[in-house]
Amino acid sequence: MKIINTQDKNFKEEFDGILARAKSDIKGVSSIVTGIIDEIVEEGNTALKRHISKFDKWEVKDDNELLISTVDMENAYNNIDEKLRQALHTTYDRIKKYHEKQLPKSWLDFESNGTILGQKVSAVDRAGLYIPGGKAAYPSSLLMNAIPAIVAGVEEIVVCTPTPDNEINELLLAACHLCGIKKAYKVGGASAVAAMAYGTETIPKVDVITGPGNIFVATAKKLVFGEVNIDMIAGPSEIGILADSSAKPKYLAIDLLSQAEHDEMASSILITTDENIAKQTSDEVENYLKTLERETIARTSIDNRGAIIVASCMDEAIELMNEIAPEHLEVMTVNAFELLPYIKHAGAIFLGENTPEPIGDYVAGPNHTLPTGSTAKFYSPLNVENFMKKSSIINFSKNAINELGEACALLADTEGLTAHAKSVRVRLEDK
Amino acid sequence: MKIINTQDKNFKEEFDGILARAKSDIKGVSSIVTGIIDEIVEEGNTALKRHISKFDKWEVKDDNELLISTVDMENAYNNIDEKLRQALHTTYDRIKKYHEKQLPKSWLDFESNGTILGQKVSAVDRAGLYIPGGKAAYPSSLLMNAIPAIVAGVEEIVVCTPTPDNEINELLLAACHLCGIKKAYKVGGASAVAAMAYGTETIPKVDVITGPGNIFVATAKKLVFGEVNIDMIAGPSEIGILADSSAKPKYLAIDLLSQAEHDEMASSILITTDENIAKQTSDEVENYLKTLERETIARTSIDNRGAIIVASCMDEAIELMNEIAPEHLEVMTVNAFELLPYIKHAGAIFLGENTPEPIGDYVAGPNHTLPTGSTAKFYSPLNVENFMKKSSIINFSKNAINELGEACALLADTEGLTAHAKSVRVRLEDK
Repeated sequence: MKIINTQDKNFKEEFDGILARAKSDIKGVSSIVTGIIDEIVEEGNTALKRHISKFDKWEVKDDNELLISTVDMENAYNNIDEKLRQALHTTYDRIKKYHEKQLPKSWLDFESNGTILGQKVSAVDRAGLYIPGGKAAYPSSLLMNAIPAIVAGVEEIVVCTPTPDNEINELLLAACHLCGIKKAYKVGGASAVAAMAYGTETIPKVDVITGPGNIFVATAKKLVFGEVNIDMIAGPSEIGILADSSAKPKYLAIDLLSQAEHDEMASSILITTDENIAKQTSDEVENYLKTLERETIARTSIDNRGAIIVASCMDEAIELMNEIAPEHLEVMTVNAFELLPYIKHAGAIFLGENTPEPIGDYVAGPNHTLPTGSTAKFYSPLNVENFMKKSSIINFSKNAINELGEACALLADTEGLTAHAKSVRVRLEDK
Repeated sequence: MKIINTQDKNFKEEFDGILARAKSDIKGVSSIVTGIIDEIVEEGNTALKRHISKFDKWEVKDDNELLISTVDMENAYNNIDEKLRQALHTTYDRIKKYHEKQLPKSWLDFESNGTILGQKVSAVDRAGLYIPGGKAAYPSSLLMNAIPAIVAGVEEIVVCTPTPDNEINELLLAACHLCGIKKAYKVGGASAVAAMAYGTETIPKVDVITGPGNIFVATAKKLVFGEVNIDMIAGPSEIGILADSSAKPKYLAIDLLSQAEHDEMASSILITTDENIAKQTSDEVENYLKTLERETIARTSIDNRGAIIVASCMDEAIELMNEIAPEHLEVMTVNAFELLPYIKHAGAIFLGENTPEPIGDYVAGPNHTLPTGSTAKFYSPLNVENFMKKSSIINFSKNAINELGEACALLADTEGLTAHAKSVRVRLEDK
């Protein structure tokens, strides 16, 4: 694995290359995706079925076939291995418990002149979850997207997932049953996003669309933003690891590979203050690579988008990591917690050697849908608030408007808005 | 003003027309705006200066002229009328106090097996505020956008505002001084949004862009979403009013007009259970219209996009209003507070006859940057969280991974991610 040193002459250039690689170019597919969305808006189910025939290679004879049967979900749940079912339940419970802690409350505040100000927080009416299917079916993504919506109190949850050759992953079906999903549809890609954003004869129009997906899904989400809300625009997965001399190279190596195996575009970056750790980790990566089922993918990712950076001190290491703003950040240092104040940007922060990133993909509790490509500088992990919205509450008393009305009218006058001023003054005139 | 009744034969058609009017079509200007953004990305300041010459009709001789002088801000603050300065201060203080109540806290949660889970909340590094200038300069928008960013703890706040003929509104300058703005630039429209999203030689790249603007600004914000975060995509202003027999027609009329005067595209909808109130309000609207400075704008808005709906009961009235999901909702009924549970979608809710909408534009405290065009179904008022982001915190103890690791590895196995499973099991093997 490539090792570079912050003291290298061309370090800045190398590092800029690492930062640039994280950007995904959605512009390239925008016109194709715009076309797909337009077809769904204009033709509804007819276009949906054409796209399924083209991309998923099966023919929908009746519109009802688009809906996944809840009986199939229940059967899948009953038929999976008992240990797996227990693992699903453990994961479900832990995710639910964590997200319940995020739940914001409506509030009111009272002033002595009778003014009441506040904020009402409520769930959106309908949420649409996009869940990848086919080869890269991740049932855990269903849990991670559905549970925050359930905790938020969303009344109607819609799921779309592609079903190549009309086949569905059994564990995904079981997870749907566990989450009580009633409206899951066999639709994938940009078509699914468009269908949920605009509605078709079969698929309800939703208010928010969340969930991972390829570049076509990400682009479609960006294009329908405004018609609905979305969680974020996500790209390939990333891990960043901060390590000092106390870190174990074999842990570092397998954790780097756990991202690399996702996708050839995934990136895995270790920044360490210890040159020996850098070398040993590189060796361990090579050892582990040979043992992986997905060796080819992981090797391509490590070769093209992996790097070990040797920094001169932990301050420098953290500064570089803040620029990367990785989706997943592992901190393997003697006192990981004490670095938290300095870590500015990361989707999820994994502290200490017993917290490998995959723990956060499944059982830990926090969401695994996280901002990528440096967008952790401004996006948050998927959370219950993605499925909620706020309304301000304002109640002025007669005393309050008498006290503050003239200041308000004066500002309205100055902005040239005379009806604004008048609507206040007409109240002031009434005794 | 047009009065329709929910019992009318063609009511559904009429109402669908009202809903459709609220949508703004940003597709129409997308290609123009894409061109403007591309120019800024490729040429930076050179393109900025060309756009200023074209749209704002003045020539920038030196890049330094783009920056608004803080001395000018201070002078404007000192020179404005004392009463106006006091009104600005009152407004500033009330907005600040309200937004401080929104501030989320980082939190940690501890489990008996040693697990620590939590959420770190922190401000973005840089925020960009777009503030309309020229004829429609609203200094209050500067306060409403800057204060949440200040309360969130944003270190660097960038302001862009167009300055037609190189002239700046004095009250806007004074408001900048009050907010301690150091980096305000004389750049407007889509160019300003692009400059803040990508950075130029003079204007820093930011993480979040907020603020109101015309269709070009709204479209630019949508197009740069993903490169930066944005607050929302907003269209023309709206008011919805729910009224029963207790409401005062002259209040209803002037409040409807306070939206109508904003913009010919603004819409003002009253839904009342009382036919007499409907008629009297329509008459009062006509009376007031003649007295307004902006009569022409307000009349066009009322004629094309205003309506009074007579509903058969308050339940029906609320149901219709929830479909409209207005930016501003006034509730003028005998016990407005008791309707709050049924009001599902609105940007800001104004309760009772002493709370005219303009109170919320200035002195009340809550933000006046609100979702329009039914997007209150999923967007929130601008708030401190628009300037913050979260990171999940996960710390597993040895006990915790021993307890939950196998369930995690099993799920990873089932998803075909062997390096994920291995990264957990390699820890389980270490005693």
